[in-house]
Amino acid sequence: MEGAIKTLVTTFISSSRGKDNLDSKSFQKLVQKQFSGMMEDTNSSKKIKEMQAGLDANNDGKVSFQEYLTLIGYLANCVSDSKTNSSQAASDAS
Amino acid sequence: MEGAIKTLVTTFISSSRGKDNLDSKSFQKLVQKQFSGMMEDTNSSKKIKEMQAGLDANNDGKVSFQEYLTLIGYLANCVSDSKTNSSQAASDAS
Repeated sequence: MEGAIKTLVTTFISSSRGKDNLDSKSFQKLVQKQFSGMMEDTNSSKKIKEMQAGLDANNDGKVSFQEYLTLIGYLANCVSDSKTNSSQAASDAS
Repeated sequence: MEGAIKTLVTTFISSSRGKDNLDSKSFQKLVQKQFSGMMEDTNSSKKIKEMQAGLDANNDGKVSFQEYLTLIGYLANCVSDSKTNSSQAASDAS
């Protein structure tokens, strides 16, 4: 688990090149590089911009570490829901 | 990154034995097993109970997945701060 949490942090730091925030370009690169297997439409920069706007709680046009953690939480919920649904389907089928 | 997010989810699911929430005993086991290298006082059940109370937003005596994600965010912030401070110290020293 420690490794997983450190991965979340180091990925943000390397994507933001050590700055406090991700600008649009680095946010798009991060999403396309890291989440193309978990999210749809990562090849659409329009969709990524919409996602960024949805995360941008303080409307500064950037993604802070807190806003990034909100995205991680959202993705974790999606994974959790899919695991819960698949185990539900398995028990229905048995 | 996908692996890191899946680790966060599967650790919760295995610790809660597939239930929606962690009870006190399973929360304590999770903290002691997963975070002893990142947190102090994980050998103190009193401290873990205090942490659980701090996370328990709906006061139901359990830790939901959302409340668990809050803990993950807190730990990620601690790791991020320690990395930022250490790189700051390195640049001060040079």
